[in-house]
Amino acid sequence: MPELNIAIDAMGGDNGPSIVIEALQRAVSNYPNTHFTVFGHQDQINPLLKQYHLKESTAVSVVHAEQTILMDDKPGQSLRSKPNSSMRLALQALANEQCHAMVCGGNTGALMTNAYFTVKTLPGVLRPALMTAIPNRVGGKSFLLDLGANASCDSDTLFQFGVMGSVAAEYLLDIEKPKISLLNMGEEEIKGSDVVRNAAARLSQCEGLNYNGFIEGNHLFSGRSDVIVCDGFVGNIALKSCEGLATFIIEQMRETLNSHWLYRFFFKFLQRRTHKSWDRLKPDHYNGASLIGLRQVVIKSHGSANAEAFYSAIQQAVAEAHEQLPDRIKNRVEAVLSEQP
Amino acid sequence: MPELNIAIDAMGGDNGPSIVIEALQRAVSNYPNTHFTVFGHQDQINPLLKQYHLKESTAVSVVHAEQTILMDDKPGQSLRSKPNSSMRLALQALANEQCHAMVCGGNTGALMTNAYFTVKTLPGVLRPALMTAIPNRVGGKSFLLDLGANASCDSDTLFQFGVMGSVAAEYLLDIEKPKISLLNMGEEEIKGSDVVRNAAARLSQCEGLNYNGFIEGNHLFSGRSDVIVCDGFVGNIALKSCEGLATFIIEQMRETLNSHWLYRFFFKFLQRRTHKSWDRLKPDHYNGASLIGLRQVVIKSHGSANAEAFYSAIQQAVAEAHEQLPDRIKNRVEAVLSEQP
Repeated sequence: MPELNIAIDAMGGDNGPSIVIEALQRAVSNYPNTHFTVFGHQDQINPLLKQYHLKESTAVSVVHAEQTILMDDKPGQSLRSKPNSSMRLALQALANEQCHAMVCGGNTGALMTNAYFTVKTLPGVLRPALMTAIPNRVGGKSFLLDLGANASCDSDTLFQFGVMGSVAAEYLLDIEKPKISLLNMGEEEIKGSDVVRNAAARLSQCEGLNYNGFIEGNHLFSGRSDVIVCDGFVGNIALKSCEGLATFIIEQMRETLNSHWLYRFFFKFLQRRTHKSWDRLKPDHYNGASLIGLRQVVIKSHGSANAEAFYSAIQQAVAEAHEQLPDRIKNRVEAVLSEQP
Repeated sequence: MPELNIAIDAMGGDNGPSIVIEALQRAVSNYPNTHFTVFGHQDQINPLLKQYHLKESTAVSVVHAEQTILMDDKPGQSLRSKPNSSMRLALQALANEQCHAMVCGGNTGALMTNAYFTVKTLPGVLRPALMTAIPNRVGGKSFLLDLGANASCDSDTLFQFGVMGSVAAEYLLDIEKPKISLLNMGEEEIKGSDVVRNAAARLSQCEGLNYNGFIEGNHLFSGRSDVIVCDGFVGNIALKSCEGLATFIIEQMRETLNSHWLYRFFFKFLQRRTHKSWDRLKPDHYNGASLIGLRQVVIKSHGSANAEAFYSAIQQAVAEAHEQLPDRIKNRVEAVLSEQP
């Protein structure tokens, strides 16, 4: 009996099941004690398993799903009209504890809604949050949440995001007393809305939490804090704005390089010599946002992920399941709630 | 009698009056029909005017200010306890119509508060907004507002920001029917909070406005829209997050370049050959955020601006004063309000 069983929804994402099965091949060879249950339409999955030499593997099983949730399906509609979708069946296997984590590259809104109703939140947790790791300038990673699961949040919810992020940073990033900050439009205590100020008061009063004050957007990547908390509207826009800027810079660089053969030649040379220090920043390595606060591990892979990026999301799922992150969050939230008036 | 008179608060910013007077020297020689009134402590200003050969210039006059607003003064306190600050005297000259625009690199909160009470908002305008130009991938500029003048906004305020930004893009960026978007966590109509959805409804119903729907953060620099509207909390965090990412990338590049003399040599070569295409993106050229919605032109220069950046802020002030932007905004807001039920 393998230690872990990871549910994979193979039908989501812009690139279809082929990048999922390619990533799965790598996961099977790198995680020998792990079983993978693939949810999807058998007519599409089986030929791919054959292609990637996984058809006979005992580490992989397939659950046929008649329905697929599309990228533009409305969340509520996907919940009501697609009970046999690959996403829903995978989440049900998770809720029934047949699987220990689930990875999906499909429709984010549908995943959040289906997970919320199928897997459910942990006792005491107000709202689940979408959390990702981002690289920082001191060579490590920080966690940023929420990325869009909740358009607006009250201060109690932001406070809980701080607690949950702190547990995640402790067990997944191996940081002893993770520094928690709230993202704000200034560092002074008087800055921002009542919501962030009240959340700050609660975080600073809570024993056992290492609250590190407000930080501004320019410290998102500075490593000043290990856990950066904001509502889903702000987190979504901050992260996507950075994505937009990165695309802009890369495009501009490409234009420069294409303007002369010598530049391309030198770039190739530079790339070979310095790939290690830049490799750490590759977005593929940060793919896999955790929907934390649920009773089980649910990982959202980026819709445009390639096989390498999807593999990162699988790694994230295995790591969280291995650390039993939901249980640890449950215990911490219970402890914090019992401590509060 | 010169056409324009620009008020310059020389005492704000991290780098003190010297960068301001250096920028002023350039402005005096580039804008022959413009007068500049410098507000600040005469003991600091006069030696600098001498150093930059402006002491005898008829294009420059000095108004002595006994007080200076410091970068960490609280906004309300600066309003009550420093009536003779260089910032306040400059704003008063603006309110009295002795000057046509004002530039200041000092404390943002204090500037907004003092400007709000001294210069006042245009009739019908609910709130002033802080607006900046950002470069885009199609070779132009877009306007982003609000950047932090208002931590939260209702839908009527966001709607007005769209109207004001559209007037600014028309006259300052020379765009005939500027495309206006609301920054949101998704492009679908159902996404985001009630506030952004109601603002979207008002923008789309308003005749004469070119409303272009929601855009996500990854389109901030894509040029899809000419005017991008959000509340000050979101705008501040989006822009500063991008600043943080840019710093991170530049630092990483510097590290790469410093690791081998050949890289530095090649970089110098590349820099000389391609500076034109990259020059457009230099943050210095985008310095100068407009506090729009006021009765006069008020421009905020970045606290850390150098002389080149401060000069950009002066250029912005001259352009807005020349276009009589406040009058144009006033007319448009009146027209829009009379059209609405």
